[in-house]
Amino acid sequence: MVDGFRVVVVGAGFSGLAAALALDRAGADVRVLEARDRVGGRVLTRWLPDGTQLDLGAQWIGPTQDRMYALIAEHGLTTFASAAVGVPTLLWAGRRRAEPPAQAARVLALLDEYAARLDPAAPWQAPEAARWDRTTLGAWLDTTAGDGDTAAYLGRLLAGGLLATGADEVSLLHLLFYLRSAGGTGPLLGMAGGAQQDRIVGGPPLLAERMAAALPPGALSLATPVRTIEQSVDGVTVCTDTGRVDGDAVVVAVAPALAGRIRYDPPLPALRDGLTQRMPMGSALKVHAVYPEPFWRADDISGVATSSAGPLTETVDNSTPGSPLGVLSGFSYSSDAAALREMPPERRRRCLLDAFSAVIGPRATDPMDLVEYDWSADPWTRGCFGGALTPGAWRTYGPSLRAPVGRVHWAGTETATRWNGYLEGAVRAGERAASEVLTR
Amino acid sequence: MVDGFRVVVVGAGFSGLAAALALDRAGADVRVLEARDRVGGRVLTRWLPDGTQLDLGAQWIGPTQDRMYALIAEHGLTTFASAAVGVPTLLWAGRRRAEPPAQAARVLALLDEYAARLDPAAPWQAPEAARWDRTTLGAWLDTTAGDGDTAAYLGRLLAGGLLATGADEVSLLHLLFYLRSAGGTGPLLGMAGGAQQDRIVGGPPLLAERMAAALPPGALSLATPVRTIEQSVDGVTVCTDTGRVDGDAVVVAVAPALAGRIRYDPPLPALRDGLTQRMPMGSALKVHAVYPEPFWRADDISGVATSSAGPLTETVDNSTPGSPLGVLSGFSYSSDAAALREMPPERRRRCLLDAFSAVIGPRATDPMDLVEYDWSADPWTRGCFGGALTPGAWRTYGPSLRAPVGRVHWAGTETATRWNGYLEGAVRAGERAASEVLTR
Repeated sequence: MVDGFRVVVVGAGFSGLAAALALDRAGADVRVLEARDRVGGRVLTRWLPDGTQLDLGAQWIGPTQDRMYALIAEHGLTTFASAAVGVPTLLWAGRRRAEPPAQAARVLALLDEYAARLDPAAPWQAPEAARWDRTTLGAWLDTTAGDGDTAAYLGRLLAGGLLATGADEVSLLHLLFYLRSAGGTGPLLGMAGGAQQDRIVGGPPLLAERMAAALPPGALSLATPVRTIEQSVDGVTVCTDTGRVDGDAVVVAVAPALAGRIRYDPPLPALRDGLTQRMPMGSALKVHAVYPEPFWRADDISGVATSSAGPLTETVDNSTPGSPLGVLSGFSYSSDAAALREMPPERRRRCLLDAFSAVIGPRATDPMDLVEYDWSADPWTRGCFGGALTPGAWRTYGPSLRAPVGRVHWAGTETATRWNGYLEGAVRAGERAASEVLTR
Repeated sequence: MVDGFRVVVVGAGFSGLAAALALDRAGADVRVLEARDRVGGRVLTRWLPDGTQLDLGAQWIGPTQDRMYALIAEHGLTTFASAAVGVPTLLWAGRRRAEPPAQAARVLALLDEYAARLDPAAPWQAPEAARWDRTTLGAWLDTTAGDGDTAAYLGRLLAGGLLATGADEVSLLHLLFYLRSAGGTGPLLGMAGGAQQDRIVGGPPLLAERMAAALPPGALSLATPVRTIEQSVDGVTVCTDTGRVDGDAVVVAVAPALAGRIRYDPPLPALRDGLTQRMPMGSALKVHAVYPEPFWRADDISGVATSSAGPLTETVDNSTPGSPLGVLSGFSYSSDAAALREMPPERRRRCLLDAFSAVIGPRATDPMDLVEYDWSADPWTRGCFGGALTPGAWRTYGPSLRAPVGRVHWAGTETATRWNGYLEGAVRAGERAASEVLTR
């Protein structure tokens, strides 16, 4: 590494921070520019007076997310197990049901079988890729799931629960890529033993803060949105509202949909720009209802539920160990979330509490608190969990997902080939981009 | 109209100019801010020394495009008939064929029948809308076209020729909406009697220049990209690199994909921003080969051809009456265009000339000139012909397409309910947005 080699990192989410730390360790001079007045990106934790930890954004980690567990240990933090009490509830066309029909498991197994045929670094090269990419998950389930209720249930479980979008908006190929990057439906959908196994004591933002604190003094600028990235044969210049930072390379560690809103000089090539037009962010509302206690446990009701109809696709018992309060968190996606956003506040509240009641009973209608955060309304995220390529786009635009454009390299969990869309993917993508820059 | 009511129009393409002229006529104080150093948007004409008119962007108008014909007359211009000599050629899996199989016509008739059931102002309300929107055109043709060659041909003809995209990237619902807005496949696909009937003497940019010249002195600022649109209860402020323009309302007359790259304060609502993430621009390369004469006519070969395989989906005899030169223009879309973009220049040239030869014979390989323009590489367009909502997006995001956000109104051909995607749609959308502002 040449002394004084400077890399500008755009975004101080987990991907940008991981890139910056790797670059700093290798001896590069790192400058991190973050639009928000905080680090961490799509994570946010609020605290109730009694110490209840409400994670409003990304919150879970699980087995094989090795970089995240390593970072947690490295920065002196610990994890706690997600509350997973009792048997998960299934709301099927409005009624409780013990478990999904047998064909649902067969469909999941089929998806895992298909996913195993993909290279997550180049899903468009699979022999069936063109057909899978022209088929939306919704249309595929119509012909594969056996009946309409099972199709609706699986669409919500997979497109909603995994990608925060609608089954009609995502291609089978993108879903298969996503499954493949995480190791299949088992690891993705599970609580204990799966991607929802653990939470971080202190919340994910605390880990981001510790990562940021490990950067050299002065390396991080908050409240500094990047407006323009210029590059020439000699180097890069990154322009903000308050100044210009020169460097040798840039790592853009924000989602493609937002990376496309930065100006580039020279302009990005047609295909890379086209990618940024075709990777919309998912759309979720995550709502936390807080109660004096997790009363549902006494009735042997699990707060963990999946529903085959809106407005909430999933709920989880999100209570904090050691706190007496009970927290039930619900997720609403795509058109359900859109409908909630358009409702007047009182109607929306009633609609949400009715949905919680369907899971844990009538006492749900009287929470102490109801806390929401809409990442789609946040101009520095504009959706969650992450971006997904639109149907039919992988073959033409997928090759531009990670390919550097001159001195500009791309990070962010959307570029990950392992645990795409997760904090783990963000970290791995950041470290991969750092390696790329270091081997220029 | 209150004296001094000021409207800022963002973009001086046909939609912005039409809005500005309508507002000016109604007595409003109009300011038009255009990023480029020229007006007209997605139109560009180059002239060869002998007077041959090469229209590199939008170029055609046809019956029922009444506003365009009226504007042409109003601004003292005239039209000429597109060259349409001989019988159109069909290249079918690499070979010439007299006409498509009978089932192709049946499929087109079925599409027209479906399209007639839609309200172009709210296509998501059709009873079959959800199913149509979760079905890509490519997947629908797989099961409807009868065989693979017919499916490929129809996919290229419709998704390519009409929307400059791939059949796998666009939903059946969006295609039906587009057909409906233009009156069906007949008006859309035809030369004489259809949307490709006439061209403008002097080129479309000349009309745009005359429209701009009809604005009050000082109303138009070129080379003035809009960076931020602020609004409050009192009014709007539109910020550029060089200053700020205050007003009472804004008409944003650029495509949603580009409108999403402007900053808004307060930020746009989640659903409107989500729309801008889900309406990518089409992707086309339009290539003009210039020859000493339209030699193919002597062989009774029409330059008008459609191909069931790449790299060119369509060619047209684009010669100018009165000029001795022959011009053959070819269109390449989506993955074909991506492949051409990635080729080294010599290989790309050979590939294009081979494709022209397949239509008009071996003399095509030796043109006097080969002129291209890639609208996807142009940062103030980023694609053509226009934007299309991605599969599954209409129901959730479609209602945000035209709905004003406070004092911000939306124009651009993507918002048109009649001749969406055409110059005619651009003009109608601009005039509709002007009416909206005037009735605030």
